Amino acid sequence: MNKKIMISLAVSMAFTAGASAQTLIQTAKNAGLKPIPSDKKALMKLIDNPKNPITDEKVELGKKLYFDPRLSKSNLISCNTCHNLAIGGVDGVSAAIGHKWTANPHHLNSPTVYNAVFMDKQFWDGREPDLEAQAQGPMQAAPEMAISKEMAVKRISSMPEYVKEFKKAYKDGKITFKKIADTIGLFERTLVTPSPFDKFLEGDKNALTKTQKEGLKIFIDKGCVSCHTGVGIGGSMQPFPAVKPYKYANIGDFKGDKESRVKTPTLRNITETAPYFHNGAVWSLDEAIKIMGETQLGIDLNDKEISAIKTFLTSLTGKKPDIKYPMLPAVTSKTPKPDAK
Amino acid sequence: MNKKIMISLAVSMAFTAGASAQTLIQTAKNAGLKPIPSDKKALMKLIDNPKNPITDEKVELGKKLYFDPRLSKSNLISCNTCHNLAIGGVDGVSAAIGHKWTANPHHLNSPTVYNAVFMDKQFWDGREPDLEAQAQGPMQAAPEMAISKEMAVKRISSMPEYVKEFKKAYKDGKITFKKIADTIGLFERTLVTPSPFDKFLEGDKNALTKTQKEGLKIFIDKGCVSCHTGVGIGGSMQPFPAVKPYKYANIGDFKGDKESRVKTPTLRNITETAPYFHNGAVWSLDEAIKIMGETQLGIDLNDKEISAIKTFLTSLTGKKPDIKYPMLPAVTSKTPKPDAK
Repeated sequence: MNKKIMISLAVSMAFTAGASAQTLIQTAKNAGLKPIPSDKKALMKLIDNPKNPITDEKVELGKKLYFDPRLSKSNLISCNTCHNLAIGGVDGVSAAIGHKWTANPHHLNSPTVYNAVFMDKQFWDGREPDLEAQAQGPMQAAPEMAISKEMAVKRISSMPEYVKEFKKAYKDGKITFKKIADTIGLFERTLVTPSPFDKFLEGDKNALTKTQKEGLKIFIDKGCVSCHTGVGIGGSMQPFPAVKPYKYANIGDFKGDKESRVKTPTLRNITETAPYFHNGAVWSLDEAIKIMGETQLGIDLNDKEISAIKTFLTSLTGKKPDIKYPMLPAVTSKTPKPDAK
Repeated sequence: MNKKIMISLAVSMAFTAGASAQTLIQTAKNAGLKPIPSDKKALMKLIDNPKNPITDEKVELGKKLYFDPRLSKSNLISCNTCHNLAIGGVDGVSAAIGHKWTANPHHLNSPTVYNAVFMDKQFWDGREPDLEAQAQGPMQAAPEMAISKEMAVKRISSMPEYVKEFKKAYKDGKITFKKIADTIGLFERTLVTPSPFDKFLEGDKNALTKTQKEGLKIFIDKGCVSCHTGVGIGGSMQPFPAVKPYKYANIGDFKGDKESRVKTPTLRNITETAPYFHNGAVWSLDEAIKIMGETQLGIDLNDKEISAIKTFLTSLTGKKPDIKYPMLPAVTSKTPKPDAK
């Protein structure tokens, strides 16, 4: 082949690739997939809580509370124990383990806190509307942090540095259990992880590899996108299993809301959040993709399709926010003592 | 009083205060108290391990391993669980609680990791010579992280990012249990917290308040300094109780080395590391000071002396190193699964 023809062919292929990438972006958008906006104002609009707007003071305070094990009865468990920001915002075990080494009684897996702000509802059964409401649950749950509202407020109020920070963060400065949870929720709202896929959706045609693009096409064509969509690439309540039984559990293990619906988990950072599903029964992403095809779509994905979808999913692994490990206030003689029993 | 006399008096008082501060610095040094050097080279000489010198790569890797719960059998406990860098390098409970919610069988309290590099020996009974040797213990101990050497190596070796980091940090690049512990130990060597007292010892006469200086005098005069000395302001093996019984425990709770010696804990950051003593029986610093007078020195410190000593001790609360919370490698299909049993 002479040089001229080669160049011409290369240009033409690039043009075709460019054009088809543009088509794929449009197809993805039409299917409801949305980026984490790179524009800071647009992002803030998306993650903020109008009833309790994000400020630097609240986020910093929320971060401290998120990492503070004194918010558990035993002094040993913090939000970060089960939603560990160092390992994808999860705990890497099938069912959460909390106070007195108690496993979650419904054998539920800890979902990631990263990008949880983009979920329609919180908890696997979708019983809470937002992160602020969610944060109240695990603190009080007997098999999790096991603290009472009163004890949480007593502990935090006993440390002058926290008293000062609540005054800085809130006009009335009062420390209440609701405000502790609200502040943790606000911090959690900031835990978003932009990924190559977001760049792609925003128009960077080269942000995905060829195989990732192929995987994305299959992901859309096969219908995965019908639940895994929006900015969260998941987050809505869906029937589960929808078509065929889930082999690792009877749905009796987990009765969702009135219609037995389960929250669709986000696929962002899915390469880091094994084990999978509400009961953490599946460790392999390949197997998880296969099962989803079966139980939710009633199709048999072949190995090549599974592999392509998995490669697409790697483009959802995002950049985590830089977190300076907080130095927490010291306890005082007024701080109620820990109780491991 | 006319202006001239007032000025002259003020100058004279300042001179006297300056002179007596200088004397106090000298007295403190003569009594064996030493600063954490502000000079970086001098500090490095003090904390480095000649057999495995500190490098940025090793410290960064050691930090990751220190925070990594996959180094426990359950995937739930890291070094940072009991030596939490956010709360003074301790866990804030009387006796350490680990795997399967098991309390330390000898009811031993987790000592702080901050400034532990300055201790003569490691563990309450001084059975290990340095932090590298110490780090091997809790990982394997059944009531702590409960992992076997083999499993620790398998877990870490299964994550390609760790494999890469070990290659960057060490010439031979091999991952061994010893090297995991050595690297954690190296990170721990960097956890030093310079305080106002160090500035004072280095000549800044105003680094301590008047009351802190008075407390320091009493601290030296009464003999506290005979054990709480050196850079660590503690760290040597001492008979305990030395003079009178310790009311919270029979020494049967804890038999130190052959001569029933217990490691003198550091007083650095003591305001942040309650509860106190090897069995964590005492929550109040005032009470701890009083008991030390009785059991170790055979004296009754009065309330004023206790208060002055306590005020001096606040000058030992130091600046913690900035720690960027690490993002840890993701598990792979080769990573051995967690086992909470």
